[in-house]
Amino acid sequence: MPDKIFPAGPIARRADGIPPFHVMELLSRAHELAAQGRDIIHMEVGEPDFPVAAPVLAAAQAFLGAGRVEYTPAAGLPALREGIAAHYAARFGVTVDPARILVTAGASGALLLALAGLTEFGDRWLLPDPGYPCNRQFVQAFGGEVDSLNVRAEEAFQPTAASVAGAWQARTRGLMVASPANPTGTLIARETLAGILAEVRARNGACVVDEIYQGLTYGRAPETALSLGDDMFVINSFSKYFGLTGWRLGWLVAPAPYVRALEKLAQHYTICASTVAQHAALAAFSPEALAIFEARREAFSQRRTCLLAGLRELGFGVPAEPEGAFYVYADVSRHAPDSAAFAHRLLEETGVAATPGVDFGAREPQRWLRFAYTTDVARIEEALARMKKLL
Amino acid sequence: MPDKIFPAGPIARRADGIPPFHVMELLSRAHELAAQGRDIIHMEVGEPDFPVAAPVLAAAQAFLGAGRVEYTPAAGLPALREGIAAHYAARFGVTVDPARILVTAGASGALLLALAGLTEFGDRWLLPDPGYPCNRQFVQAFGGEVDSLNVRAEEAFQPTAASVAGAWQARTRGLMVASPANPTGTLIARETLAGILAEVRARNGACVVDEIYQGLTYGRAPETALSLGDDMFVINSFSKYFGLTGWRLGWLVAPAPYVRALEKLAQHYTICASTVAQHAALAAFSPEALAIFEARREAFSQRRTCLLAGLRELGFGVPAEPEGAFYVYADVSRHAPDSAAFAHRLLEETGVAATPGVDFGAREPQRWLRFAYTTDVARIEEALARMKKLL
Ligand SMILES: Cc1ncc(COP(=O)(O)O)c(C=O)c1O
Ligand SMILES: Cc1ncc(COP(=O)(O)O)c(C=O)c1O
Repeated sequence: MPDKIFPAGPIARRADGIPPFHVMELLSRAHELAAQGRDIIHMEVGEPDFPVAAPVLAAAQAFLGAGRVEYTPAAGLPALREGIAAHYAARFGVTVDPARILVTAGASGALLLALAGLTEFGDRWLLPDPGYPCNRQFVQAFGGEVDSLNVRAEEAFQPTAASVAGAWQARTRGLMVASPANPTGTLIARETLAGILAEVRARNGACVVDEIYQGLTYGRAPETALSLGDDMFVINSFSKYFGLTGWRLGWLVAPAPYVRALEKLAQHYTICASTVAQHAALAAFSPEALAIFEARREAFSQRRTCLLAGLRELGFGVPAEPEGAFYVYADVSRHAPDSAAFAHRLLEETGVAATPGVDFGAREPQRWLRFAYTTDVARIEEALARMKKLL
Repeated sequence: MPDKIFPAGPIARRADGIPPFHVMELLSRAHELAAQGRDIIHMEVGEPDFPVAAPVLAAAQAFLGAGRVEYTPAAGLPALREGIAAHYAARFGVTVDPARILVTAGASGALLLALAGLTEFGDRWLLPDPGYPCNRQFVQAFGGEVDSLNVRAEEAFQPTAASVAGAWQARTRGLMVASPANPTGTLIARETLAGILAEVRARNGACVVDEIYQGLTYGRAPETALSLGDDMFVINSFSKYFGLTGWRLGWLVAPAPYVRALEKLAQHYTICASTVAQHAALAAFSPEALAIFEARREAFSQRRTCLLAGLRELGFGVPAEPEGAFYVYADVSRHAPDSAAFAHRLLEETGVAATPGVDFGAREPQRWLRFAYTTDVARIEEALARMKKLL
């Protein structure tokens, strides 16, 4: 490109090639419509709609009241790392050494750190398609290449030992997986993950397991991959179950031999995660806070039942049971050939916003639309009623 | 290394080779001594010692009181971007389009973003030695290589047009510079920076100017490189002048043609910066807040005068006048052959903690010790008195 356009030299390839999120366009159109007085039902948002839980808010306010907000150690406040470890013990019966826990700016920070610590230029990573779109960018950030794993609805949109083994190449560094997953809300079965791990271990590879939606499961007890061993890189966050999105706080559990190097990376890349958020999160594991989160999970569960039944009744296909997170990934092909165009039509004609599959992968994205049940049952019913009229 | 030690494959080179900060060792020894009842004077800390300014605290508390802490746009709250632009206009007389401002998790986040957007595998960056140690890691994160610029005390420890031109190679992508600088507290003269920019522009390279200590200058009006053009990548932060370290908030001003790509990177890498911090920072440009920051600058100025005179009186060399930040970079060679050993001796025998040069570069680091005046005049005088006894 001509120098005139880039006065300080070219943009790096990792930044230049990123397609915009389609949903952003939809969102700005939604804002326009709202400004015109239209009532928009937001089902595109990957963010819980609850206020900050009172005990967490109180902890933040008490901390701020003391008036000092200093850098913390790069790995996080010792008390928070211990609190997270205690949570693993209490809820999952899994022992995790607090020394293996690195506190980060959201799961985003944990993913960045893990990929930075594991990716050599030219390394390849296996990523399920559909999947969380940012994972591709974390890999490419550090000179890695992405190989998409074509997961199947009949296998809960999750990889299998066979698919991983089949896709592994000489330069494959590892696999990224999420459970519950975005955009599908599906879980990976314990045996399936164990089988995958065996394949990854046999190849001396790395398994990054994103458990950001941990705790948000319906009809199934929450699980952690950490019960299968201590050689995975487990990603987590206070954003979803704990409802602390805008606070930017998460964590990474790393295998012990990697911790020191990752901690040094964190020191240099970030100094530390938000001190205010860390002090607030200290209260997130209290019985009072957990009771609130469990009540919210129950609310999500009811929304899920309502949305899932409603979408199926309208003729949307939901072939893989979404048992977690707050998403339903619906097949719209009975109603429209292209989910992106359909999403725009939905928005214009019914005021319902949902995210088209094109934002999550390249495998038949035009068939899929992600509905988030981050709005209450009354609004979900209203959305379903409007869609019924349209179809 | 044997597989047994790294069960999930090797650590990436960018993480494996990072030397630990020497000051960390000193710090843990300082904590030990403090636990034994010793009075430690902390002059190693690169963090202002003031509480959160009242208007900023009030803004944070008011925002939290509303109970909703959601993700913001990746580039930051529009009101904050506008506030930053208005600050450039009011204080520096420089017009910056808010659209060019990307809000980040501290200057750290801004540096990461800029280097990610500019560095191709194998690109080379020129970094002054001594300098901020993390810069090297930001370059290496993205496959870049560092060439150290040997800056001279007689030239304020800053690069010159000649040194940049002389060090530029075929694969040099750009230059990183800081003013005021860490660890030296020195500024780059406007003409010098203009001369450097001419060299960089002639080579279609990128200039990253770290202005994190902007506002903390003594006897000199604060400046911005943005007055020299709109083709630089300017780094800034709420950490130092605004005293908001643990909040993790900063910003990047990018040349217009790069903004969209950098914004997409930020979307994927971080989602957004702390929402709580962004709302707090909205109050940082109010006249009341600025009055507090100016009063603190005055306090820093008095500390600087006291420390600088005291160190010189003790026979430490301070060849380049530190006119900004809160650091004095002192030559200890009259007293000791190795500043790292000397730092340990200082700590053990006087309880004064300072950071050895080895943490900031490879050029004669054993001559230098960084004293931070992030403690009050009485403590600085006490530190000087104890050192006088020792020497
Ligand atoms: C699967 C998955 N991983 C990671 C993230 C990052 O979230 P955060 O950085 O807020 O923890 C998200 C956010 O939606 C997600 O869906
Ligand atoms: C020169 C310089 N740049 C950047 C940073 C990063 O600071 P923050 O991320 O808190 O803004 C520091 C911190 O000490 C610094 O000294």
